[in-house]
Amino acid sequence: MERDRSAPVVGLDVPAEVGMPVEEIATPALIIELDQFEKNVKTLKDFIETHGVRLRAHAKTHKSADVARYQMSQGGACGVCCQKVSEAQALVSAGINDVLVSNQVVDKRQIRHLAEMAKSARVMVCVDDADNVDDLARAAQAADVEIGCLVEIDVGAGRCGVRPGREAAVLAGRIAQARGLKFAGLQAYQGSAQHKAEFETRKALIGEAVRQVRETVDLLAAEGLGCEIVAGAGTGTFALEAQSGLYNELQCGSYVFMDADYQRILDENGEPVSMFGNSLFIVTSVMTSTLNATMINASGTIHGLFVISKAGWMKLNTRQIAANTPMNPRIWFLRFGNANTSRSTKNANGSIRAR
Amino acid sequence: MERDRSAPVVGLDVPAEVGMPVEEIATPALIIELDQFEKNVKTLKDFIETHGVRLRAHAKTHKSADVARYQMSQGGACGVCCQKVSEAQALVSAGINDVLVSNQVVDKRQIRHLAEMAKSARVMVCVDDADNVDDLARAAQAADVEIGCLVEIDVGAGRCGVRPGREAAVLAGRIAQARGLKFAGLQAYQGSAQHKAEFETRKALIGEAVRQVRETVDLLAAEGLGCEIVAGAGTGTFALEAQSGLYNELQCGSYVFMDADYQRILDENGEPVSMFGNSLFIVTSVMTSTLNATMINASGTIHGLFVISKAGWMKLNTRQIAANTPMNPRIWFLRFGNANTSRSTKNANGSIRAR
Repeated sequence: MERDRSAPVVGLDVPAEVGMPVEEIATPALIIELDQFEKNVKTLKDFIETHGVRLRAHAKTHKSADVARYQMSQGGACGVCCQKVSEAQALVSAGINDVLVSNQVVDKRQIRHLAEMAKSARVMVCVDDADNVDDLARAAQAADVEIGCLVEIDVGAGRCGVRPGREAAVLAGRIAQARGLKFAGLQAYQGSAQHKAEFETRKALIGEAVRQVRETVDLLAAEGLGCEIVAGAGTGTFALEAQSGLYNELQCGSYVFMDADYQRILDENGEPVSMFGNSLFIVTSVMTSTLNATMINASGTIHGLFVISKAGWMKLNTRQIAANTPMNPRIWFLRFGNANTSRSTKNANGSIRAR
Repeated sequence: MERDRSAPVVGLDVPAEVGMPVEEIATPALIIELDQFEKNVKTLKDFIETHGVRLRAHAKTHKSADVARYQMSQGGACGVCCQKVSEAQALVSAGINDVLVSNQVVDKRQIRHLAEMAKSARVMVCVDDADNVDDLARAAQAADVEIGCLVEIDVGAGRCGVRPGREAAVLAGRIAQARGLKFAGLQAYQGSAQHKAEFETRKALIGEAVRQVRETVDLLAAEGLGCEIVAGAGTGTFALEAQSGLYNELQCGSYVFMDADYQRILDENGEPVSMFGNSLFIVTSVMTSTLNATMINASGTIHGLFVISKAGWMKLNTRQIAANTPMNPRIWFLRFGNANTSRSTKNANGSIRAR
């Protein structure tokens, strides 16, 4: 009974094939509008070049090796962040050679996988516990690799991290002493500031984070521990961190596709921040018109929604319906499960260019 | 660089292997507590037998061929519902032989796939448009199959469906006349009633739906069109439909895992409905204890959440944290992407029994 899937069928296995007209996409399909996507990538590249900071793009936004490669080759990214070892492994397998797991990795098995990965890529991880340092060091020694460690400090998000200052310095010293590990700097991401609507609120929160980072960097310097990396910043606040003179590696992720929610946040003049635009959409189809013309099929909304109807393309987002917006024919499909990356949900997803 | 995935690695490709101790599950992992799952399945089986109605379990809850098979072999289900053709195709490929796509299918390509599927399973679909009837008939004739059609009537949800009564009868007549199609009855799902907290509210909404179904069934009967199937009902209201004397095929889905939200709804005595219990959980791990002991790794919450800590298992849901709840060792893992079903996100997911 098992259907042969060696030749993927449009509508069952894949939403479309390269060269197919946009109108024939099997819906619902997750698509990237390439014009806006490329513009977003270039906008942040220009920004980091102007401000003399690095970008380590956060791959949790896309989990796609193709998007990660584009960010590194065209968008100035020095590498990527991942949230989990298995995500990092999928990207490293696909050729991404510089990955930070921007979380604590405490499971012994996952630590072994992390060390194994360091044989074929630069691998870093965040640390906020002394025992974890010892576990990481043992695994690195066993695999004969070096794992870079960022001491994570809690700069207000209340999630992970030791306290800034003395606690961080003690942990940094332990890492510096550990064979197989390299003290690479600080992880100081203020996650709870990113989506605050008012500019002054974000400015105050990042200002406080910067103060704590400075205290820690100074203390470390006094003990002879230099911070190659001072990392943090998301799409909501990165300009503030970049101007701090302390943060040198931004971790923006959402900017490539741009959250609808980030368009709710305001700049210092009270205007919506307009640096990036939405580039990720779901294409879907009207499946009934018995009650109203905008009835759609059952799919979630990511950033926005395209509805195909006889009247033409309609673009919907959470706020408005603008009928007859012509659809950009330059699109990508995010594919979940291609021949190379299909064996696990945690893998990075390939993507195909439709035209 | 591409990693060999022919031998799945625990922690990267799969969360665990059969026979592995529960404590060694690579987290986060989606698990089914088998005791509660089996109890839920048996509870609804007993109910439908007592009330003399059929169950066509809704597979949108799990999208798993293994769960669907269990519902049919052990839970009294006559078949399953799906929301999309590709979901139905995945289940039919895995041996499920009776599927209703409980939606309109209007895309020409998907209609062809639907007809193709009818070569190896009983296939039904909902209809609320005359042109769609013609399209379905043409595809059925071309594939030399029969497609069962339920006329969907809008009984208050305001989603899909023609008006009860005359409109439904006209459409049913068109189906009955169409070669390749079979008029199989009515789809009359009152989706907006399912999660209403007050019993009296649900009772009034379903009462009105039943009135509209009766009007339509009577009109159809007067025109010589019998309804083999009168379908509808979800986990929130099914007892009301079952007692109507009209509905004969329930479409409950959530009952197998049980939504946390459904535990918010009250019975006629104002008590929480307690017929089913949560059986789907995410197992995750504490990855930092710097700030508090319940810090967990980044994963969504489905129905509830288990946290592994040195102190033992803790069960969290949206309302409470109950420390030291021992974890049921009889579990399943929902696997996304095994060797047979990995080529598309839309496929049904296999699952493995850990013990």
